[in-house]
Formats: sequence, structure tokens, C-alpha cells
Amino acid sequence: MSEPILLTPGPLTTSASVKQAMLRDWGSRDTAFIAMNKALRQRLPVLANAQGTHVCVPVQGSGTFAVEATIGTLLPKAGKLLVLVNGAYGTRMVKIASVMGRTVEAIEWPEDKPVEAHAVDRRLAEDTSITHVAVVHCETTSGILNPIEAVAQVVAHHKRHLLIDAMSAFGALPLDARHVPFTALMASSNKCLEGVPGMGFAIIRKDALEASANNAHSLSLDLYAQWKGFEANDQWRFTPPTHVIAAFVQALDEHEAEGGVAGRGARYAANHRMLVKGMEEMGFRCLLPHALQAPIITTFHMPADQAFVFATFYDQLRDKGFAIYPGKLTVADSFRIGCIGHLGAPEMQAALSAIRTTLAEMGVATGAPSLAA
Amino acid sequence: MSEPILLTPGPLTTSASVKQAMLRDWGSRDTAFIAMNKALRQRLPVLANAQGTHVCVPVQGSGTFAVEATIGTLLPKAGKLLVLVNGAYGTRMVKIASVMGRTVEAIEWPEDKPVEAHAVDRRLAEDTSITHVAVVHCETTSGILNPIEAVAQVVAHHKRHLLIDAMSAFGALPLDARHVPFTALMASSNKCLEGVPGMGFAIIRKDALEASANNAHSLSLDLYAQWKGFEANDQWRFTPPTHVIAAFVQALDEHEAEGGVAGRGARYAANHRMLVKGMEEMGFRCLLPHALQAPIITTFHMPADQAFVFATFYDQLRDKGFAIYPGKLTVADSFRIGCIGHLGAPEMQAALSAIRTTLAEMGVATGAPSLAA
Repeated sequence: MSEPILLTPGPLTTSASVKQAMLRDWGSRDTAFIAMNKALRQRLPVLANAQGTHVCVPVQGSGTFAVEATIGTLLPKAGKLLVLVNGAYGTRMVKIASVMGRTVEAIEWPEDKPVEAHAVDRRLAEDTSITHVAVVHCETTSGILNPIEAVAQVVAHHKRHLLIDAMSAFGALPLDARHVPFTALMASSNKCLEGVPGMGFAIIRKDALEASANNAHSLSLDLYAQWKGFEANDQWRFTPPTHVIAAFVQALDEHEAEGGVAGRGARYAANHRMLVKGMEEMGFRCLLPHALQAPIITTFHMPADQAFVFATFYDQLRDKGFAIYPGKLTVADSFRIGCIGHLGAPEMQAALSAIRTTLAEMGVATGAPSLAA
Repeated sequence: MSEPILLTPGPLTTSASVKQAMLRDWGSRDTAFIAMNKALRQRLPVLANAQGTHVCVPVQGSGTFAVEATIGTLLPKAGKLLVLVNGAYGTRMVKIASVMGRTVEAIEWPEDKPVEAHAVDRRLAEDTSITHVAVVHCETTSGILNPIEAVAQVVAHHKRHLLIDAMSAFGALPLDARHVPFTALMASSNKCLEGVPGMGFAIIRKDALEASANNAHSLSLDLYAQWKGFEANDQWRFTPPTHVIAAFVQALDEHEAEGGVAGRGARYAANHRMLVKGMEEMGFRCLLPHALQAPIITTFHMPADQAFVFATFYDQLRDKGFAIYPGKLTVADSFRIGCIGHLGAPEMQAALSAIRTTLAEMGVATGAPSLAA
């Protein structure tokens, strides 16, 4: 099979119709293309119930570009960012702020523990110089779901700005601006919204964005200037990834047709339940308790069986048409399997079946980890 | 006609086969995808005869992202950049350096005049604190070709670093590192190489890049870190625009099949000659003398005929299936027509025919500008 099913956190498997939307060229000043930009900017805030209060600013590049652009645009040079870290994406935000020369500090938790609102409460009370707090909604490092609503309430109570890296969750896990007050949320075309990679976006409180002129450390990543450009004529300041955008509009249509966030989330949750049930039947064990696990990507402990070699397992699954994902954890030896993308029960069943066959071929009796795990 | 022929400097018209390369999903860690990254990085420096001395560092985003990333990575915080400005893209480099807080100054020429090496020579002799010089190869603002070889010789004589924004020329106009010494050249997937938009790249002297760790103002746009990432495993540090990359590899195959830079350049030159001849027959006049004009995009003076209204002309051409480009000049009222992209004699003839019909429909007797122009 030349095109594998991607059981990864993205780039992920997209529908044929999303890819087919890339089969034409668009002029960046074409009225039909301009209408697509306008539609994107109007539709995305609605997914977070943030229409009216917030605006959407798309930006070229990967999700990380959108995260960096948002931090660089909203955090004043004299501001101070507190990042809640329980994985690689939290750590990355610390690095982003640090490279751009802004004041940043972190509270850290182990990768298999959620961040805790009470620690944020304490830190914000202690340090009134903290202006912004950043948190990851679903940390792909482990697949853990952070208590975003509790964190948002605390940050709002202290009247600071909250920036949510919702990259791997947006469009599938509910995030309602009326209950989760946030200044900005960052996501991309290519995760749960099932577009192709090549652009990110931020959904930003309009009043905060209006106050952010000349904050940015970068011309390309200045979301204030980008927003002003869109407001002027619904065009991108710099050459847009036209094909990626056309695919994204198609992907949003399919997201809506599936029932929006609720429908998309329900399919992923079913994928996830099927995956975990099947893997547990083979003896594999999830890193996280079910209550902490987001239905996005699941981390499994490495099996203890001596016959299990991850590289072989990975390659043989790849040969059978399934791409899984290596682990990124420091706390445990592990690997990951995603359940997002244009996948449903047939693909998850086929993946489980391929895993079962591969274990048999490798002579692995059980996926169970060592007792110490 | 729903899909117009794009007579623009990009996004431009690409071949059907380039777009079809986007009809599958690639995992970012897939061996076949990794091989594409490796191929891109090996093939692009060869187009500038820079293999061995230089390395290629791709980066997500538009061409401007690649320009900013290159300046931010190579210009030390204590460095000083001299930008040679005769159009909007030179001005943009001044802005890029200024936003990132680096010391920058410009020498400016009118938009219809090439930059002059002797002025650079004088300035570099006067100011030994200038460490880097930046110039645009073909300034799309007017379509002018700058004397890149003379500038490069002067900059090399003064032992400074030269950064060439070759965005709109690379792949069609010769630029040979053996005759045009440069530290870095910036271009994108979507101009003369006829890929789709969504990534840029820089071709950078390896010794200069090796000395640039920790210069960058941005994590996303740090080409040193990006290069180290590619060197380690031929993977992108952050989610790659996989479909754009697959299309770019196909576009490079088609570029090679056409005879590389010479073949591509010859087609564009023929497109350009046909366009100018046809337009001049209708009375239109080029802004630039032929010797200064690059065969990429041509600026025409606005006709003096009272019946000519540019917005009507533009819309009626668009309705006939041809997208042209507004002017960007401050020195003269003008519009632009590009001749790059997957276009040849039939498309250029069809465009001229549509222009002829449109003038007749508008009641415009001649495309001639006023005598003052």
C-alpha cells in the first residue's frame, strides 16, 4: 500500500474531496479567493462561540508559526508570560518567548499529570508582573487533556490574558468562549479540522488585538498587521498558500456536515474507544487513566515481551499501510497511536487487525508492559 | 471560465501534474516523504551552481518568511544591513530588519532605475560597520532586472555578505554562484519553479550558516536550527506543508525536463517577447527600456484614452479567463502582466486576443499613454 493511513497527530489522513479542492490555481486577488478568506475568518470563531468578541487571524506556516505569532503579537515587550508545562508543546512556548527576548517563566508538571489551576492561582497572586498565561489544551506529548476551564477561570479572576494552544483539539473538543474566557486560541488547518498542513490561525479578542500594534518581533508573524490587512481587503499581506486554503474551506464544509465540533468529537471518541479496547485486549496498557485521556492521540506503554522491538513493529505496520507515532515522553518508554483524521470504525478495526498480525509475526505473546510501568 | 490563467507574479498557473501530486497524504516521518526533503535540499543548490559550497534550508510560509528567516539568521544582532532599494521588495527587507531590531540602512533608486554597483562600492568603503548587503534580483514592483553580478563583485571585494532576494527570478534567470558570489539567496516554491505556494527556501553558504547559531530573532524562522534539524534526519522541525512539498518535487522534475534554468528562461523570454510585441501593436508602452526588463513581469503605462478605466479592463479580462496584476509603482500610473507559470505561446496569444477584444468593447482606440509618460 503506497498511501498509509496516518494514525498520527498530523499531518493526518484527509478526505479525497479535501485534496481535490487543491486541483485548481487561485489568484491571490481573485474575488472568489477573497471570498474564501472572508468565509474562513467568519466561520472559525463560531466554532468556539467567540463570534462578536473575537476575530480570526490566519497565518502562513505550521501551527508553531501561529503560536509564535500570537505570543509575539499579544505579549508586550514589557510583559511577562507564565507557561503551564506538562509536555513538549508547553516547553516549546517557553522557548518561543525566550528566543524573542521576552520575559517568560514556567510551572512544570510531569508529562502524565494535568496542569493544576490552584498552582496557577497561587503564582498569579504572588507575581503581579505576569501579564499572560499560556496553556496547551491537549498535550500531544502524552495525549493528556488539561483542565482548560478551571485554568481559564483562575486567569480571568486575576485579570490576566490567557493564550490557549488548542492545536490538536480545536474542532473536536468543545471550547466555548462563554465558559472558558480566553484572549487567544491558536490552532491549525491540519488537525481535527482535517485540512492539509500549511497554515495556522489564531482567534483573538478584538480589544486585545487592537491594543497590540507594534508589539511583534517579526514582520511575517505580526498578527496585528496581518489582521489589519485582512480587515482592509480580505487579502493576505504576503503570498497565501492558496491551495491549502481552498482545501481548508472544503474541510470546514465537511466538518459542518458532520455536525460540527460535537459530530467530529463523537467520531474521534468512538475511534478512541475502539482503539483502546482492541489494544487492551492484546495486553497493551495506556499511560494515562481514562479520565485524563483526550480522544486525540493515545500513549501506550512499551510491551515488556523480549520479542517486541519498536522499530520492527513500526516498519511492519507501515508495510501493512498504517503509520503510527513514536513516543516523546521522558517519564516512560512508550509509543503513540492517533485517532484523528478522516478515519472511522473500518480504519480503526483494520489497524487493530494489522497490529494483531504484526505481534503474531514478531512472536510477541502480549502487549503488556512490565509491572513497573 | 472558472479557473483563470494567472498572468501574475504568483500565485501562478501550475501544471495539472503538479497539482495532482497533492492528491495523497504523507506522514511527516514517512521514509518516502523524508526522501523528498532530501531530494529538494540536494537539487535546489545545483540550480545556482552552489552545490558543495552552499546548503539549502527550506522554511514554511511565503517567500517573505524565507527572506525574513535568512536576514534574522545570518545578520548578527551587532551586524548592520545595507539594503539596495528600487521597489517594494527592497523596502520590505528594510522593514523586516527594522522590526526585528537590527541596524539597517538603505540606498534608494527610483523604481524604474536599476541599483548601481558604484554607489554600493562607495557606501561600503565609507562605512566599514556594514556587514551585510541585500538586493533584489528582479524587482517585481516594476519588473526590472538588477545588475546582480556587478553588485556581487563589489560586495565580495569589500568582504561583506550578500543576500539576494531572488524570489521572482530563481529557476528562470541564471544566477551562478561561481560568478555571482553570494552568502544567501532566497526564493520560493511558487514562482519560476512553478510549484504551489506554501514554502520558501534559502541557499546559504555553509560556513556562514555554521557561524549563525543563536542569531535568530524567532524560533520558527531560525534557519540555523532548521538546517540542523534537516541535517540530523531530513525532517522538518515543525509540521511541514506535505502536499506543497510533494507538488514542489513534481515541479522540479518538470523544470528539469524542460531543460532547467535555460529551458525555463527561454520559454518565459518567448512569452515576454510575444506579450510586448502584441501590446505594443495595440499602442501600449512598456515602462522600462528593453535592456532593463526581466522576462518575468512587465509594467505597462496606463493608456491615455478617456474610455480606458483600469478596473473595467481588469474585470472584463477576468471574465474572459485572464487575471492580470495592478500596478504598484509610485513613479507612474501603470499595470502589470506576468509571463511566468505554466504558460506558453497559446496562452499568451489568447491573452492578447482577450485584451484586444476588451479594448474594442470598452471603445478604447489605442493603448498609448500620454506623451508625458
